[in-house]
Amino acid sequence: MLLKSIFATALAIVCLHAESGYDAWLRYQPIEGPTLARVRATLPAVVVALNDADPEVAARGELIRGLRGLAGRTLRAETQIPSENAIVLGTLDELGRAAPQWKLSGRLTEDAYWLKTVVDHGARYTVVTASKPRGVLYGAFALLRKIALGEPVDSLDQRSTPYAPIRWVNHWDNLDGSIERGYGGRSIFWENGHVRADLTRVADYGRLLASLGINGCSINNVNADPRLLTPEMIAEAVRIAAAFRPWGVRVVLSVDLSSPKILGGLDTFDPLDAGVAAWWKQKADELYRAIPDLAGFVMKADAEGRAGPSNYGRTHADAANMVARALAPHSGLLFYRGFVYDHHMDWRNPKNDRARAAYDNFHNLDGQFDSNVVIQIKNGPIDFQVREPASPLFAALEKTNQAVELQVTQEYMGQARHTAFLVPMWKAALDFDLHAGGAPTPVKALVAGKTFHRPAGGFVGVANVGLDENWLGNHLSQANLYGFGRLAWDPELSSRQIVEEWTRLTFGGDPKVDGIVAAIQLSSWRTYENYTGPLGLQSLTDITGNHYGVNVESSERNGWGQWHRADEKGVGMDRTTATGTGYIGQYPPEVARAWESLAGCPDDLLLFLHHVPYTYVLHDGKTVIQYLYDSHYEGAETVAGYVRQWKALAGLVDERRYREVLAQLEYQAGQAVVWRDAVTEWFRRTSGIADARGRVGHYSGRFEAEAMHLDGYQVRDVVPAEDASGGNAVACAAGEGSASLKFDGAAGWYTLRVQYFDQRNGVSHYRLRVAGQAIDEWDADLLLPTTKLDSTSSTRREIRGVALRPGDEIRVEGRPDGGEPAALDYIEIAPEK
Amino acid sequence: MLLKSIFATALAIVCLHAESGYDAWLRYQPIEGPTLARVRATLPAVVVALNDADPEVAARGELIRGLRGLAGRTLRAETQIPSENAIVLGTLDELGRAAPQWKLSGRLTEDAYWLKTVVDHGARYTVVTASKPRGVLYGAFALLRKIALGEPVDSLDQRSTPYAPIRWVNHWDNLDGSIERGYGGRSIFWENGHVRADLTRVADYGRLLASLGINGCSINNVNADPRLLTPEMIAEAVRIAAAFRPWGVRVVLSVDLSSPKILGGLDTFDPLDAGVAAWWKQKADELYRAIPDLAGFVMKADAEGRAGPSNYGRTHADAANMVARALAPHSGLLFYRGFVYDHHMDWRNPKNDRARAAYDNFHNLDGQFDSNVVIQIKNGPIDFQVREPASPLFAALEKTNQAVELQVTQEYMGQARHTAFLVPMWKAALDFDLHAGGAPTPVKALVAGKTFHRPAGGFVGVANVGLDENWLGNHLSQANLYGFGRLAWDPELSSRQIVEEWTRLTFGGDPKVDGIVAAIQLSSWRTYENYTGPLGLQSLTDITGNHYGVNVESSERNGWGQWHRADEKGVGMDRTTATGTGYIGQYPPEVARAWESLAGCPDDLLLFLHHVPYTYVLHDGKTVIQYLYDSHYEGAETVAGYVRQWKALAGLVDERRYREVLAQLEYQAGQAVVWRDAVTEWFRRTSGIADARGRVGHYSGRFEAEAMHLDGYQVRDVVPAEDASGGNAVACAAGEGSASLKFDGAAGWYTLRVQYFDQRNGVSHYRLRVAGQAIDEWDADLLLPTTKLDSTSSTRREIRGVALRPGDEIRVEGRPDGGEPAALDYIEIAPEK
Repeated sequence: MLLKSIFATALAIVCLHAESGYDAWLRYQPIEGPTLARVRATLPAVVVALNDADPEVAARGELIRGLRGLAGRTLRAETQIPSENAIVLGTLDELGRAAPQWKLSGRLTEDAYWLKTVVDHGARYTVVTASKPRGVLYGAFALLRKIALGEPVDSLDQRSTPYAPIRWVNHWDNLDGSIERGYGGRSIFWENGHVRADLTRVADYGRLLASLGINGCSINNVNADPRLLTPEMIAEAVRIAAAFRPWGVRVVLSVDLSSPKILGGLDTFDPLDAGVAAWWKQKADELYRAIPDLAGFVMKADAEGRAGPSNYGRTHADAANMVARALAPHSGLLFYRGFVYDHHMDWRNPKNDRARAAYDNFHNLDGQFDSNVVIQIKNGPIDFQVREPASPLFAALEKTNQAVELQVTQEYMGQARHTAFLVPMWKAALDFDLHAGGAPTPVKALVAGKTFHRPAGGFVGVANVGLDENWLGNHLSQANLYGFGRLAWDPELSSRQIVEEWTRLTFGGDPKVDGIVAAIQLSSWRTYENYTGPLGLQSLTDITGNHYGVNVESSERNGWGQWHRADEKGVGMDRTTATGTGYIGQYPPEVARAWESLAGCPDDLLLFLHHVPYTYVLHDGKTVIQYLYDSHYEGAETVAGYVRQWKALAGLVDERRYREVLAQLEYQAGQAVVWRDAVTEWFRRTSGIADARGRVGHYSGRFEAEAMHLDGYQVRDVVPAEDASGGNAVACAAGEGSASLKFDGAAGWYTLRVQYFDQRNGVSHYRLRVAGQAIDEWDADLLLPTTKLDSTSSTRREIRGVALRPGDEIRVEGRPDGGEPAALDYIEIAPEK
Repeated sequence: MLLKSIFATALAIVCLHAESGYDAWLRYQPIEGPTLARVRATLPAVVVALNDADPEVAARGELIRGLRGLAGRTLRAETQIPSENAIVLGTLDELGRAAPQWKLSGRLTEDAYWLKTVVDHGARYTVVTASKPRGVLYGAFALLRKIALGEPVDSLDQRSTPYAPIRWVNHWDNLDGSIERGYGGRSIFWENGHVRADLTRVADYGRLLASLGINGCSINNVNADPRLLTPEMIAEAVRIAAAFRPWGVRVVLSVDLSSPKILGGLDTFDPLDAGVAAWWKQKADELYRAIPDLAGFVMKADAEGRAGPSNYGRTHADAANMVARALAPHSGLLFYRGFVYDHHMDWRNPKNDRARAAYDNFHNLDGQFDSNVVIQIKNGPIDFQVREPASPLFAALEKTNQAVELQVTQEYMGQARHTAFLVPMWKAALDFDLHAGGAPTPVKALVAGKTFHRPAGGFVGVANVGLDENWLGNHLSQANLYGFGRLAWDPELSSRQIVEEWTRLTFGGDPKVDGIVAAIQLSSWRTYENYTGPLGLQSLTDITGNHYGVNVESSERNGWGQWHRADEKGVGMDRTTATGTGYIGQYPPEVARAWESLAGCPDDLLLFLHHVPYTYVLHDGKTVIQYLYDSHYEGAETVAGYVRQWKALAGLVDERRYREVLAQLEYQAGQAVVWRDAVTEWFRRTSGIADARGRVGHYSGRFEAEAMHLDGYQVRDVVPAEDASGGNAVACAAGEGSASLKFDGAAGWYTLRVQYFDQRNGVSHYRLRVAGQAIDEWDADLLLPTTKLDSTSSTRREIRGVALRPGDEIRVEGRPDGGEPAALDYIEIAPEK
């Protein structure tokens, strides 16, 4: 009678990952106070799945798990409608058979759900229905979310329809387990060239995705390894599809156009070659035999060194359609990335413009793509910069399916070390009216296929979660994954609605927590922009390197085309039609007309679209140069404020996440000063115009290491110079070093800030002494993406509450390790109030 | 200039063990709110150690560390008195030289401290002084404690003198790293026959001890391995002494009387042999060359199989004096344990009585011990039972030094799995007036040497801390170490004062936390007594085994002498002079007179001193048998209440300690029911008298496993029978088993309690299904001290909020592991309100 297998299956018990961040917004922590009594009073004891299979069974399990956590009640799992109160899960068809007297019917699009209270013979049924089982699953998560948010659920009649059919995530995971632009640890899918033995994380990730209504997930890098299409690897990928399947998440594969040649042994991968087409057809058939619900492919071609149709003089349409036709019999989709540009562009030609590339490459092909091809277009014309206009290509494709590609992983946005809640940025793009037709045509409507009535379209988020306990490397960054999913379902939600939902679910319902977390998140994008690249300058990260630290000049004078054209006279890319690259002319006339003139161009995009002198006066009355100075100081001060705000939550957030977020915000506050100083110093030096408020270049209380008494330390140039205060650092080649100064200020309590360099290639040790007394010591043990002295490694240690007396020696002692020379930039001494 | 060694020394930074319990009551968490502003307003910026050596430097470091944590200020460490406000640490002599104008003088006994505010030329000095540097260290901890407790410290004039010179802890650590009766992990001193390589824990333990004023610590088991006295091991022990030394803790060694023979190669260890005496003299000299501040020896002889003077027909005085004379030139003390008894005593002789042993062995020797011998006497005449009278030996030694031995480690008191705050128990002994002279002579005064003006005497606590992160295996048990130290310094402190201090320091100052923790701790001894052995029955643990689980009969009919003489007629040891063992006659007449009569004997000691019928009516009006029943139910209910009380602290105590204490209390609540049922069932069966309230033997909602439908499970007898409900359990020899029943109660929400057996020798897995649905699963992974089905392994799993319907099958499935057969006792089904 007893099955041998019962102990092999996982039981949906509320797990003990508790406050590590693992459960993200699905924590199901106990409801407290009077709400609990209210919930318990109306809670049925039974949850019915009319179909005894996933995803309805997964939905039922989730309700049991969720209500066990939220209300401390374990509901009974049933398959038939009882004569007592119950939650009933089933499709409209299933309900029509099981409870025809309820007369539940109506048209629900795929994935839409309907929450409906039905009273029958004195029993109250909370019905969760949909046209397909996956919609039932989404309805179950929606019901749990309502309960967790404290909303009443005893008299429901709510239909919710997703805005677009495509709500996918992409992952840039390599088969070796690394992730390109991943900041939350190594791959949950791959390890050492194979699918990971333990796919628990994949199933748990599927659950997180399902809670947001995300229904597709690519599992390998768009810079695709053709090896994935070998029979051996397909057999391994089957396991990933199985782990996702209960949660309604369909697998997507990234494929390389040259696969028939590299993998199939053909001598060509010409899209118009019949043998090539046959190879793809055979491969698709083979794949669908292994993974019958495969959602499709994503393909990056002719971009950043990838093979493409240009190898044979063919068009993107030729390539896309050839592959799409192999998928079509299986209803699979082919996502063709619009991210195609020349990265060897001549920067000396003022008419050259990378921003033009997507439009130039694709707008003439409109109408030539098959109906199961979707052009996947990044929200802006460059590459996930802190501020870009919406891509003009969205308005140019009327007879082609499209999807917007948004980036959850914060490649240029602080890489999970800086707080940057991206929903407001995404909404700025999605809500932007491109005037593609007569009626308003916001980007969201265009990509969803609403404007031109396309059969496919929607939202793709580059998620790049990893094995870190909290998935994304940073608790606050989880809000971006949540926000992407919520927006993909309903882009009409406001940023505030989303962040408040997320905060309550993630950190609990204390009003002080809700208020402060929302305030930090909602201001964080603008703040990041303020201390990195405002006015449409783009992020100003090291774009030829790690895309993280500041490097103003790395954008210039190279073929990558992220130029901002700053010189001693002025700054900005002239993209006007009159005198510039003509990029503005790619937009519909209403938009182009406004942006062509300085008067009509919004300040936030000014330097993206125009070249102006530093003394140009913005709409807000400031000169460009003064705005650059002011915004950087404002940004850095705002982050310092985040630290103070977060500290007010001590005791209101669980200890572990409190400490981890505090550490992250404190680090960010130091980095914001590095950014501020580097960018303002660069522009001050280049423009020759001083900060009207006298801050840039004058740092009160700052003592440069190179001016201290050094023992064992040598002065080193830092490149670029603005990455270090004064352009220099001191480094210790071997042994131990010390840098010291005599304090000559007034006696009192001070905060000391030691700016040092924490490279990836070593763990130096530092100690701070005041008048001989060791008052702090620390390791430079962050794994920042650099092995050099630069803005990426520049890190701040803040020591508060130090008593200083005139004549005190302040000394930093450093011990290098590995290739890291225990380097120092400066010490700042600030009196405490 | 830069010393190579600077990175080798540890810096007194507030460490990150934070809320693991590692820092115990020395957490120095930030003061909050207006108190912080008040503290900061008067906080000096300088702390001076007039002597630039430990322990004054350790004291200065502790003040810097503590105030950095409490107030976020790093004070300046100086060696000279500045012209500004400062904390000044120094002996009276040092202050006389450095600041003669302050005229600080007076007699302070060794270890006493004086906190004194001095105003001089407009500067305010917080002076911490003493006659010796160790007293300065104690004063520094006292000052920090005041600040942490929120007491004002700006106008101090407080002298504090320890009640007794001896305030020691003992450790029963074996050289292999195990600890006899240790419940907090393996030894911090020893590993694999040697001193541990890393002695960080020893130094940190020294700091904890110093904060309480404890000045001596034995580092090896009283059942001593003579190998410790080899030159090689002495050299290793030197490192332990060095780790303790900065904290004023002096090392004590446990020695074996037979060492001259076993180790020295002599053919005798006769205390009166000149060669033996010479050997001890030479060994003591050798030891003091290695450890000049060695505090002395502790010796267990002629007890529980140890060698002793009786081997040569010598007296305890002969043995003690011979060893003490070797120590005397070095001012070392010899602690001779009074715990001497015959463990092969004939139980059939009603006049035999182990309780008499200490007195019988030692009282005639009074006056024969050298002045550096201390007789170390357990608080009660048996062995750390839940309730014993104070030992009569305390009153019998007028010309002999004595110390009371209290047990911090909870050998018979739940072994760190049950909450039992022992300060009230110790105070009951210490405050007990033995009427040894004309004036009141409480035990504390006798052992402190106050009554008979002895040069040495005091308090010894058997601490047995281990490598567990929280030292004692249980957060709440730390209060016993704290309480021992505080009582040893000042036994006039009330239990409430001690527990409130401890709670504020350990869990922070929330009034709700303070109130609930104090309420739990203060009632916990009585509660433990209630559900184990009330009325002076003693603990009723398995005394021939693990001293943990219940085993009523293990005390009877063997040579160990912990008899309670229960039969079908009555219960209790007759220790009267009239008809019993005469033990009562060992007490001074005032005490003996009162206890000799039933009328004068307090109920709490009744069965320790008298044999009575079960129907004997207590002072409180109940019969003995009904009191036994009632107290056990009351005890179990009180522990269930602890769980509810603790749960009210969710969010007010840091998450980790909240969860760990909750798990411990929930376990204890289950164990209290096991105890309740076993003891009441045993007495019901033996006495034949039913519980007037109808509870014993009638357990509503309880379903015995042996009466269920079994598949793969077999019925097994449990020995003793009262350790399992109904006398039986079911066990699964191999494979998997299930036990199921049909629920026939009313539909509703229920709590299910599964009573199972968690042995040490395996990790069985259990799963609970209701109507086929898996609703809980767990591992039996506790490391309880048994490999059998008994009350020690009997463990409860409680599953709340389960919906049951008539006809439901409730099924437990078990999978054995190792030697553990996934056994079950019963399921209890209780309706929820």
